[in-house]
Order: sequence, then C-alpha cells, then structure tokens
Amino acid sequence: MTISNSISIDKVISELKLVLDKKNNILTEYEERFCYAYDATAIGEKLYLPDVVVLPENTEQVAQIMKIANKYKIPVITRGAGTNLCGGCIPLKSGIVLHTSKLNKIISIDKDNLTCVAEAGVVVEKLQQEVEKLGLFYPPDPSNLKVSTIGGSVALSSSGPRCFKYGGTKDYVLGLEVVTAKGKIINIGGNTVKNVTGYNLSQLFVGSEGTLGIVTRVTLKLIPLPESKQVLLVFFDSIDDAATAVTDIISHKITPSTLDLMDQKTMDTVEQFHPTGLPTHYDAALVIEIDGIADTIFVQAKQIEEICYKNNAKDVRIAKDKKEADEIWFARRSAFGAVARMKPNVITEDAVVPRNKIPQMVKAIRKTADKYNLNVCTMGHAGDGNLHPNFSLDLRDHEEHERLEKAIEELFDAAIELGGTLSGEHGIGMSKAKFMNKVASNEVLEYMKLIKNSFDPDDILNPGKILIK
Amino acid sequence: MTISNSISIDKVISELKLVLDKKNNILTEYEERFCYAYDATAIGEKLYLPDVVVLPENTEQVAQIMKIANKYKIPVITRGAGTNLCGGCIPLKSGIVLHTSKLNKIISIDKDNLTCVAEAGVVVEKLQQEVEKLGLFYPPDPSNLKVSTIGGSVALSSSGPRCFKYGGTKDYVLGLEVVTAKGKIINIGGNTVKNVTGYNLSQLFVGSEGTLGIVTRVTLKLIPLPESKQVLLVFFDSIDDAATAVTDIISHKITPSTLDLMDQKTMDTVEQFHPTGLPTHYDAALVIEIDGIADTIFVQAKQIEEICYKNNAKDVRIAKDKKEADEIWFARRSAFGAVARMKPNVITEDAVVPRNKIPQMVKAIRKTADKYNLNVCTMGHAGDGNLHPNFSLDLRDHEEHERLEKAIEELFDAAIELGGTLSGEHGIGMSKAKFMNKVASNEVLEYMKLIKNSFDPDDILNPGKILIK
Repeated sequence: MTISNSISIDKVISELKLVLDKKNNILTEYEERFCYAYDATAIGEKLYLPDVVVLPENTEQVAQIMKIANKYKIPVITRGAGTNLCGGCIPLKSGIVLHTSKLNKIISIDKDNLTCVAEAGVVVEKLQQEVEKLGLFYPPDPSNLKVSTIGGSVALSSSGPRCFKYGGTKDYVLGLEVVTAKGKIINIGGNTVKNVTGYNLSQLFVGSEGTLGIVTRVTLKLIPLPESKQVLLVFFDSIDDAATAVTDIISHKITPSTLDLMDQKTMDTVEQFHPTGLPTHYDAALVIEIDGIADTIFVQAKQIEEICYKNNAKDVRIAKDKKEADEIWFARRSAFGAVARMKPNVITEDAVVPRNKIPQMVKAIRKTADKYNLNVCTMGHAGDGNLHPNFSLDLRDHEEHERLEKAIEELFDAAIELGGTLSGEHGIGMSKAKFMNKVASNEVLEYMKLIKNSFDPDDILNPGKILIK
Repeated sequence: MTISNSISIDKVISELKLVLDKKNNILTEYEERFCYAYDATAIGEKLYLPDVVVLPENTEQVAQIMKIANKYKIPVITRGAGTNLCGGCIPLKSGIVLHTSKLNKIISIDKDNLTCVAEAGVVVEKLQQEVEKLGLFYPPDPSNLKVSTIGGSVALSSSGPRCFKYGGTKDYVLGLEVVTAKGKIINIGGNTVKNVTGYNLSQLFVGSEGTLGIVTRVTLKLIPLPESKQVLLVFFDSIDDAATAVTDIISHKITPSTLDLMDQKTMDTVEQFHPTGLPTHYDAALVIEIDGIADTIFVQAKQIEEICYKNNAKDVRIAKDKKEADEIWFARRSAFGAVARMKPNVITEDAVVPRNKIPQMVKAIRKTADKYNLNVCTMGHAGDGNLHPNFSLDLRDHEEHERLEKAIEELFDAAIELGGTLSGEHGIGMSKAKFMNKVASNEVLEYMKLIKNSFDPDDILNPGKILIK
C-alpha cells in the first residue's frame, strides 16, 4: 500500500494514531476507505480510494493531522456530509480524508449580539433548530440541510431557496478558525458584522472547497426569526408566464423569501414518487414563500395571488395550514430524490443566469436534452436565476454519459452567453474545473493560482479541485 | 523634481501626456499637486506630495497609465472623493495620484434583474437617486454619500447607518472590472447574486484600499425601494438604557434600518452648530429609522416607542412628516461638521464591538478622553456596535497630538478586549496599519502580504497602506 509520493502509508498511519487516541477515529480498512471514495456526485466507475480516513474531535487534533500531512506532503481532503454535487470531496490523489463529523459542537449562541459559533461538523438543520429555540434565525437552507454541515456550507458557499431574500452562507460568515496547510491554527474575520481590517480572508475561504485551509470553527451572523410565514403554489401554462410573474412580484416591492420553480417534468416525477395530488399537466409551478409580520403576510399573499393571475396563472394555492405548507415544500424538496428513482444516476447542474433570462435558459436546457436524447427535470430558484437541471441516466452506459458531457458543456455555454455563470451554489470541485476558463480569463485564473500557492504551496489541500494546474 | 526610484519624472509625465489627450486631465503644477497631498484624514503637518495627478476618462486610459507606472515602478494611489478617514489616499511614497472623478458614468440599471453597473467615480448619492427613480434601492449610505464615490466605497468597504438592516457595500458588490498592477483589464465576479466559481476575488478587492488593483467598474446588487419609512428620535438619561433598548427592540423581532446613537456632547455640539431645539441635557439619543410597508411602519413605530419607554426613555419623538425626519437626520449627519468647528482638526475613530458591549465601550472612550484631557463627541451605529468617537484638537499642538495617539491606542485595546476590532467601516489605510498586529496574528499578516505580493509584486499600488512591510 503506497501513497502518491511513495512514502510508506504505514508510517503516516502510525503517526496519525498517536494523535487520534480512539480507534474508531482512524479508518484504514479497505471497506471503510471505500465509503469515502465517493460523495453525492455521480462520478462514474473510476475509484479514488483514500489512503486513510481520520475523524478528529477537536481543532488541536486537526492541526496535528495537518502537521503530519505537511511533513509527508500527503493530500488532505476535508469532508462534511459529502452531499456536494461537484466531486468536492473526492480524493483525486488519494491521501487523508478528514471527516468533520466529530467536530459537531455548537460552541455558543449569543442572543444579544445575534451571532453564534459552531464547529465545522455541526449539521445545518441542527444549528437552525437550536437558534430558533431562542427566537433567532440562520436563513441559509441548502436542500440537504438535514445532513449537510456548516463547514460544508462554507466550503461550497452554499445557498438555498431562501437566498433570494436572505442571501447565502457567505452573507452570514463573520469569522473563521482555520487550520493552515502547515498545521497552524489561525483566526480570520471576527465577531462583528462590520469589520474592515485588512483583506477579507474569511470571504476568500468561503467557497474555496477546502483548498486553502481547513475550516474548523465558524462565527455566523444570525437575524431575528420572522414572526410568520406563508407558502403559495402557483401553476402556469408556460415558463414565460411564470418568469414574468416573478419579475412582476418583485416590481411590486414584495420580497418573498423564496421564489422557486419546478417544470412539468419535475412535477410529474415528484407526483409519481409520492402522490399528493400535484397536477402534472402544467408547464411550470412557482413555490413562493413569504415571511415577516403576520398581518403583512396575509395582505402580501393576496397581492401575490392577484399578480400571478394577472400574469396568466392557471391556479394559485395558498397553503391553509402548516400541513399544506409542508406538503408543498415536500414536493419541492423531494424533486432530487424523485428524479433519482428513474435511472441509477442523477447529475444535477447548477447554472445561474440573470433572472429575466430564465425562460431562455429553461428552453436551452430542454432543447439540449432533446438534442442529446437525455431525460431532464428542471427546478431551481427563479428569484435568483439559479436553475438545477437534473439529468437522470446510467453512467455505466458510456455512450449516454458522453452525450451528457456534451450537453452539459453546451448548457454552460448557453448560461454564459445569457450573462450567467457555471455555478450558483454547488461549487466547481472536480466536475467543473475544466470549464473555469469559460468564465475567467487567464489572468484571473493566474491570480487564483497565486492565491492557492500562497496558502498551500505544496498543493496538499484537496488537490485537483477548482483549478487545473 | 525626482520620484522615488530616481528616474526623471519628466519622462513619465511626457508618456502620461500621450495617454491623457486633454490638458486638464494631467496636473503637474505644485499648487495642483498640493491639493492631492491630503484626504479627509487629519494627518498633521508632514507633506506627502504626489509627483503628478491624472484624471483618466475611461478604463483603457487607466490601463495605459498603469502600464507606464509598472514600467517605471512608480506608485499609483487611486483616489475617489478623498473622504476617507484613515489616510487611504495619502501618497506616502509620492508617485501618481489617479483621480477617478471623470470615470463617472452609470453604465446601466437593470430593473428586471435588480443590478446596475457604474464606473468607479460615480457619486453614491447620484447612483441612489438614479436607481430610486426606477423604484429601486441601493442601501449603503456612508455619511459622506453626497460626494463619496462607488469606487471609494468599494476600496474602503464602507457602510453607514442602514448597514444594520441592509448590510454594507460588500454585500452589494457582485462583480468588478479591475486594472491590474501590470495594466491588464480583468473582470472578476459576475452579474448574478449567486456565483460560486472559484475564489471570491471580488470580495478580496472590497476593502483592499487600492492596494491590489484599480477598480474601474462595479456591478452592484439592488433591491426594491421600501414603500415607506419613519424616523424616531429617542432620549435617554443613560447610555446603558439606550443600549438595552436597542437589544430589546431587536428581541421583539423588529429590524430597523437604522439604530444610531449620539451622546450628550455630540448633541450639545450639534445644537450649538445649528440650533433646532435638540435637547442637550440627555446622556444619549437613538436615531431609529424603520422602513417597509406603510401599515407595518405605523405599528412598528408605536411598538418601538413602547419598548423605549419601558427601557427608561425620557422622550420619544416620532417625526410627523418628512421635514421633521430630515431635521433629525440633519442633526445626526452634521455631527462630524459640528465637531470640526471646535478646534482645527477632528480625528474620527471607528472601533467596533459586539453590540451589547456598547455601554462599556462608550465608558472606555469617555474615561480615556478624560485621562488624556481630550475633547470627544461619540456617535455611531448602535445596532452594529460601531462607534465613532470624534476627537477635536489642534494637531500643531504636538503635545496634544501625542496624548491623542496614546488615547487611540488604548481605545483599540479596549475594543479588542471587548471582542471587537479596529475598524467597522473606515478602513486601515496609513493610520491604523501599525495596529494590525493587534487583531491579526503573524501568520494571518503573512498571508495578507502573500496576497498583496500576488497582485502587486513591485508594491506600486498604494504602498504603505494596510500592511507595514
């Protein structure tokens, strides 16, 4: 058993064992390591097996692990729940997978200052529940929030439906504790919303996918929990009408927390998966959530209903109670799972375009899927122009996989042509590194490489991600 | 006449003249250059004279200027309105001052996508007025917005009273056009709110004070203009009561756009400057602005009134009309000007602490001012924990200046001790570079230097700012 730079892995493991005192905090068996060769990304058949998996319990252990990795120049791939969709946690060059699941403590919630400090492995939903008990709110809501971690959210700069009103993870990160490539523990950013003291290193780390350092603790901004919320489900005969309705709602100075979109095929697939009476013949549906003061909510829901009908909505359903609201959200949130039933693999893309280009982008997705004979369900965040086409396929069918690769590249070209970009919230990882030159000039990529080199001169932090050397 | 690296400035000027076709776009006379030896910072008597001042009219000219500067390794100090308070535009090592006042075009306002593109020299208030005509809103409101520029806002990551609800400049920057140290034009970030494509270079540039590149164009996020707003002026007999009221308002799930604070001495000074019947015997006043839907505003104003009285407010004034609201804002905004009448110089500091530490910080400011026999008026953004003590003094009095220097260092130590930091919105510049090691470890400073070196290896972009070599 050898690792990339041909030193004996046994030596590394024996040193790691001295740091990780508990036996189950270091995994070396093939079957164990096999589980960490994948994340939620459908990457096909090639196996990227890590040499060893470590589960540190505190920052000091992370620092020690990193010192060992730095000594032997072994890759370290930090992993939260592994729910990313860009191959962000795949150990492309083997090495150590550092799983953050035991860095799972909420250190503090400061009700007076609307901040909290959490370790990287804290599950997003868990944090949300804890702060909500105190009347506070952590808005970022990636679809996988029941399992995904704060550290993963920071690494991928993830967002979610509520980003339209509240912004994404990056807008809530105030400060970070980071273990550097050399195993030093540093603190960047701070505890306050306003903070202009030198270069904004915290924001440089948000979305850096574990390639610049290992985030071990995160200081987050919180906001007061909205008093009340309301969900509407609105059906349209055309995507264009749905998109126009979105623009019209916003031009009426209404800022819903969520303006999400499902296309016909998504609704059809969801209804087959879990029948709740979702109509399957409309071209598009909007899931609109508004929140705020109870009195306002009622008025705004009526206003939105009116605006939607004016824009040719065919049916507007306002959830009567929490049960109905939950059903609507279940439909929207289970779209990925529903699509996954159709064929063995699902590839979810993440193009983002200026909001008023959504109809054109949806049409481009459909046209490309037809051209390459692919099955696609499209959903996304209409308020943000962020679309998630879900392609279901069998990656063992190499010919189908090739068609998909071509289709995806054409889709990115279409998104860029419309003024958009490669990723709104899923990141670049290994999947889209090859497309970075479509959105960034050589000079810009060169600056990114210089930054990478500043923090990780030996390229041991999640190598092969974001930037192709 | 020679510049830092002893090449003839005449040669540089003759090359610059070839780029800047209009005579008044290049200033070389002593009297002209003298005007650019200062910004709004009281720096004392030492004169930092630039060798030449250029006023390019487009990005291409900026690139050509930068190519010349790079060829001769001459410093370039980019300057907007020069309203910063940290010596950000002082040409410490002479060189070229690049004034952005002729890069003053609003390129586009996209109502559908809630974005706009503006050149760096566009005045903040001008941009706000233009977007408001379309029912849109650009919230960042630095106190100097009548003259300060978008480029300056980006360079200093400036905020303002409305930051509490809406965030500061950094939260609105989506993309930047930048001229690099070598004179290349690059585009970073994009047009969409969601964008996770590689390292977040845009946010690295926000707050970098012209030390990494010259920002020539900015793509900004906009939001819908709130329907209505209301201002309250609330008086307290103690800072503690005012601070508790702030926390109590927020815990009632009310998010005012502004939660600003003035202390007794500030009110007294403002009233002497421009009498409007502002009482001068209360220990503190809060300026509270709420905005949103008209019906809600009325209810919230009443709620806030009640909460304030519950927290021992002595008087709550709710502005009856726009005139009264404007008078309240005039008082708050003229505080700096009023203080400036007392003695020849005003030094405004910018410490930020966790919000519930405001009473302690105000007390520390008063205690320190007493200890060093200095005159101080304190105002600030109570919602953000961001305090601006304004020291009025005569910098020609060297003994007084020395006392001030000691006081300021003690204040920063107090802010840091309370969990805060050096700057909320004014930046580091030359004034606070020497204190950076109080908030950042050697490792963190080293990373910042590596970043600086990546973008500006010859240290020609605003040298001597933020980081001490």
